[in-house]
Amino acid sequence: MARTFEVTILGTGSAKPTKQRLPSAQIVRMGPKQFLVDCGEGTQLQMMRKGIKFNNIQAIFISHLHGDHILGLPGYISTLSLHNRTKKLHIYGPPGVEDLVQLVLKIGRTHLSFEIEYHIVPKAPFSQIVDEFGYSVYAVALKHRIECYGYIFEEAGPERSILKEACESNNVPLHFYEKLRMGEDFEYSPGQIIKNKDLTIPASPHRKYSYMSDTIYDPSIVPYIRQSDLLYHESTFLHALEARAKETFHSTAKQAGIIAREADANELLLGHFSSRYSDVSAFEEEAKTEFPNTSIAQEGQTYTIK
Amino acid sequence: MARTFEVTILGTGSAKPTKQRLPSAQIVRMGPKQFLVDCGEGTQLQMMRKGIKFNNIQAIFISHLHGDHILGLPGYISTLSLHNRTKKLHIYGPPGVEDLVQLVLKIGRTHLSFEIEYHIVPKAPFSQIVDEFGYSVYAVALKHRIECYGYIFEEAGPERSILKEACESNNVPLHFYEKLRMGEDFEYSPGQIIKNKDLTIPASPHRKYSYMSDTIYDPSIVPYIRQSDLLYHESTFLHALEARAKETFHSTAKQAGIIAREADANELLLGHFSSRYSDVSAFEEEAKTEFPNTSIAQEGQTYTIK
Repeated sequence: MARTFEVTILGTGSAKPTKQRLPSAQIVRMGPKQFLVDCGEGTQLQMMRKGIKFNNIQAIFISHLHGDHILGLPGYISTLSLHNRTKKLHIYGPPGVEDLVQLVLKIGRTHLSFEIEYHIVPKAPFSQIVDEFGYSVYAVALKHRIECYGYIFEEAGPERSILKEACESNNVPLHFYEKLRMGEDFEYSPGQIIKNKDLTIPASPHRKYSYMSDTIYDPSIVPYIRQSDLLYHESTFLHALEARAKETFHSTAKQAGIIAREADANELLLGHFSSRYSDVSAFEEEAKTEFPNTSIAQEGQTYTIK
Repeated sequence: MARTFEVTILGTGSAKPTKQRLPSAQIVRMGPKQFLVDCGEGTQLQMMRKGIKFNNIQAIFISHLHGDHILGLPGYISTLSLHNRTKKLHIYGPPGVEDLVQLVLKIGRTHLSFEIEYHIVPKAPFSQIVDEFGYSVYAVALKHRIECYGYIFEEAGPERSILKEACESNNVPLHFYEKLRMGEDFEYSPGQIIKNKDLTIPASPHRKYSYMSDTIYDPSIVPYIRQSDLLYHESTFLHALEARAKETFHSTAKQAGIIAREADANELLLGHFSSRYSDVSAFEEEAKTEFPNTSIAQEGQTYTIK
């Protein structure tokens, strides 16, 4: 009984808006946790269209402070308050996210119904920024025109997988499942236990999702994203525009494929397409020459991390 | 040959987003001039959908600094720069608009390809903020939770209407039409003139479009918007929620109708509907009890000021 681990793509566009694609945003779900990763203009409208509830997000991860990754954030936060959220919201990102949100609240004289805790990502090549029960989040410094981080979501801990039928026939209450996953025996009355090994099996290797946007082609990130089950890597341009990609600190589809192959990823998702391409099928073909298991990220689609 | 004078509605929603309506924004066209009035999140996407060119806007008028009226502004301005605009952009609004735009440019290290001139609206009940050839714009202080202005767009000057056939048969060049409108005679060769009265007729009375959003029911604005040919007045609530309207400094449909009647307007457009109403046809019925010539503003529709 594997836990939920999936990503829903909300936007695959880049800086210049198009009718076909929205700017960057995605929802990552890990068990009961739900995160928003980047928040371009229109993210809250897209969430509504895709039936994603506003208030189920525990934390937001912002890669960098270009408009196509952040301009939906002040509106989304104001909307949470209009929905009377009370639970604290965590926001991770480079310095400056707080300034934007606070300025919008100040000029609109808006008082939020909930608290925001801002977490500035350490200026380091790689750092663990969340270490919670069952999962970790890591930040990877990306080389872009401004300070920018990729994020890695990884299942964590020594947890085991539940044998559902064994648990049910032994009347293990649902709330005890997390303890079973951590290896505890089940004591069903004082002194009387069922061994953990009769209720669980060793967990499958920890799954890992890596979000790498925006970045120049940079093989130095490979050790951090190694063996990602799913890798989202930006591919703003086709390789015919390699020089333009380099100049603007972006990657090509071919380069994304090379990174996926070098990192021994299982699956590659391409996104962050330049507005100059209305049809992006060539991106998939190009990346597949380097890494066959490649797809174009589709807005509104949910990808399970296997 | 009356000049273009029309408004295209882009958003009719209010603070809390809905799937049906976008936040406030509209395009006002007066002759060759094109203005953007308010700029909620998603305005640039809506402009693309409705086929409105980004770069034809000369000036932006912002009513107030609540998110649903301004959060599309930084993205729209960044996009103008990505399209290599060079012409100066004028932005009119209360103090603070500049702070938002400049912060977004600063944190994204964005350098615009064009200059912005910010015009702070005087803190007065009524003031003329634009006095250009052929038209004027006035600001009316509205009573809302924060500093807020309605805008009045009015044809101006002593201009006359062109007799197209007479001009064409006398080979009057198109570039001279503006001078004809101002009453000049046409000198087709030195000393040889055709009298203005043979090429024009007296202009129809100056047309006037008034945009009043957001505001509590406030009859003190009536003298300023008197005899508007078209009045857009917010109606966030139906009159059953009059108390809620008052508390949040908004108006009801009935109140918008009363204002239109008292101001002797020709036509009333209702907008800025609360997200609680998915069907807004009752707004029209309610306002019509006070002012029969009322319509619901439709997103994407263009209304000619007659």
